Amino acid sequence: MKKLINRPEDFARETVEGIVLAHPESLRMVNNNHHCLVRADEKRAGKVAIATGGGSGHLPVFLGYVGFGLADGVTVGNVFASPSAEAMHEVDKAIHAGAGVLHLYGRYGGDIMNFGMARDLDEMEGIEVTEVLVSDDLASAPRGKEDKRRGVAGLVFAYKVAGAAAENMLSLAEVTRIAQKTVDNTRTLGVALTPCIVPEAGKATFSIGEDEMEIGMGIHGEPGIERSKLKPVDAVVTTMINRIVEDLPYQAGDRVAILVNGLGSTPKEELYLAYRKAHSLLQDKGISIHRKYIGEYATSLEMAGMSISLLKLDDELQNLLDAPCYSPFFAQFR
Amino acid sequence: MKKLINRPEDFARETVEGIVLAHPESLRMVNNNHHCLVRADEKRAGKVAIATGGGSGHLPVFLGYVGFGLADGVTVGNVFASPSAEAMHEVDKAIHAGAGVLHLYGRYGGDIMNFGMARDLDEMEGIEVTEVLVSDDLASAPRGKEDKRRGVAGLVFAYKVAGAAAENMLSLAEVTRIAQKTVDNTRTLGVALTPCIVPEAGKATFSIGEDEMEIGMGIHGEPGIERSKLKPVDAVVTTMINRIVEDLPYQAGDRVAILVNGLGSTPKEELYLAYRKAHSLLQDKGISIHRKYIGEYATSLEMAGMSISLLKLDDELQNLLDAPCYSPFFAQFR
Repeated sequence: MKKLINRPEDFARETVEGIVLAHPESLRMVNNNHHCLVRADEKRAGKVAIATGGGSGHLPVFLGYVGFGLADGVTVGNVFASPSAEAMHEVDKAIHAGAGVLHLYGRYGGDIMNFGMARDLDEMEGIEVTEVLVSDDLASAPRGKEDKRRGVAGLVFAYKVAGAAAENMLSLAEVTRIAQKTVDNTRTLGVALTPCIVPEAGKATFSIGEDEMEIGMGIHGEPGIERSKLKPVDAVVTTMINRIVEDLPYQAGDRVAILVNGLGSTPKEELYLAYRKAHSLLQDKGISIHRKYIGEYATSLEMAGMSISLLKLDDELQNLLDAPCYSPFFAQFR
Repeated sequence: MKKLINRPEDFARETVEGIVLAHPESLRMVNNNHHCLVRADEKRAGKVAIATGGGSGHLPVFLGYVGFGLADGVTVGNVFASPSAEAMHEVDKAIHAGAGVLHLYGRYGGDIMNFGMARDLDEMEGIEVTEVLVSDDLASAPRGKEDKRRGVAGLVFAYKVAGAAAENMLSLAEVTRIAQKTVDNTRTLGVALTPCIVPEAGKATFSIGEDEMEIGMGIHGEPGIERSKLKPVDAVVTTMINRIVEDLPYQAGDRVAILVNGLGSTPKEELYLAYRKAHSLLQDKGISIHRKYIGEYATSLEMAGMSISLLKLDDELQNLLDAPCYSPFFAQFR
């Protein structure tokens, strides 16, 4: 295990300490608890608060999406492990500004259980809570079972759009509707070339041959849908785009946002090779790209590979996607 | 070799094609030559133009630093290989706006030779040219031989500061002086955990044991100054910060900018662990951090490891560093 870390059991806490030392103007802990981070600026009375959370090891997910025009608070677990309901409840109390809280997170068993308990705790204190589960990973369940799918890089679109809606002072019902609509119009498919190593486990999350790749691999190493010999990036992207497009389906005339996301150790150069092919395939299908994000937006430690996400836009989603936002990890000004 | 690429010999060209497809509002090729990229917006008459360039494989270096408040043009070579003097000359002609051109690049033999020839070609056409060689890598030559040192992540500070000076419509002599002052006040030291693989070579740039690290390794695998067993990140950062601080030297009362830069496959989490320790060490030394950059700013494909750079600030450098800038790879708005 070749990592620049101290003791594996301190990894998640020390990472958060480093982040709060680096960005005190943007993020602060609640009650000095490194599991609980919220926006450092003053909250706006009457604004819907957006809470998210999940395990560590996916930066910028989750805490990188707390900021202006994004989420308001995050609960941070250990690596690939759900944080506790109590910590989620602390965050919710800290960010609640009188207009309710949206729980916006990826569909994973532990998180569902803990956010559910946090909601019970919140409601006992009179905080209204709704939830939207991001479930964009089309490899994690077949069509028709979208409500069984896991959340992956599509989280970024959900934070961006719902965060802008909340910043516009829309109601909890409206922010929730818009977050759900974003999820409903997002599809992601990934490809993994190597596993990653969880510090405390000290060994690879899965094994894969020196000349193999796996399409649909989850961000914690959940099994994918097709393992094969490594192919040229143009062939890989063709498979991925075709599966994504047919799943929603996206159609000629659609406007989309695209996210080409590196999983950790794949160089930016390779992400642009992937974008190059995706751009040409979508153009051939008559699907126009309104906005693109290319880089590391949702990672799995040092896993090699990438994912491609599409979000189908209408005027409402497009206006919200185009709004400015700011966090130390994700800023959009134009 | 596990890469998401097509034919290795097409890697550099196809990467640039993907970038220009993704960011046509920011970057355009000169004469459809993928080696020659310039800002897509109209040039401002009387503004000093800044040209840079070097081999591919280091994104966002070099082309990611072409934009508003940064460089104006870049010549892109193949992986780890200098571009040609003719291509540099084409870029210089395209960006020249009547106030001369600053060649701002890292000290590497091939680049020095080619930028020198390009300067001759420029001057034959009446374009005034100055040059500043970035040479921040303290591991590449001992103190007293700073003029033999290579340029690494300190390039980012040089682009940022000199770019802001040029955007302020300062003269070529002034922009050149300020770029040189930035270089003179910057020191960088890196640590590598793994090599990278150049696509056309197909094999690792160097070998290193499964439990080893090397401090001072160059970004093309040039030998460093100390190979040892992998240590905890706090120990690694302590060695690095001490060597950096004593080299300039930086002193109690100094204000600095810090760049904690990932070389490719090191997770953001680990960069924040490194920042955490660097922050505390600098605080103990009485050196205050005015601004920090933490992420992948100058890479070596999928190399694992990171570098730390410090820039000592005075009021002039600080004002220029704080100015806004924008490129698809590096935006600063506050």
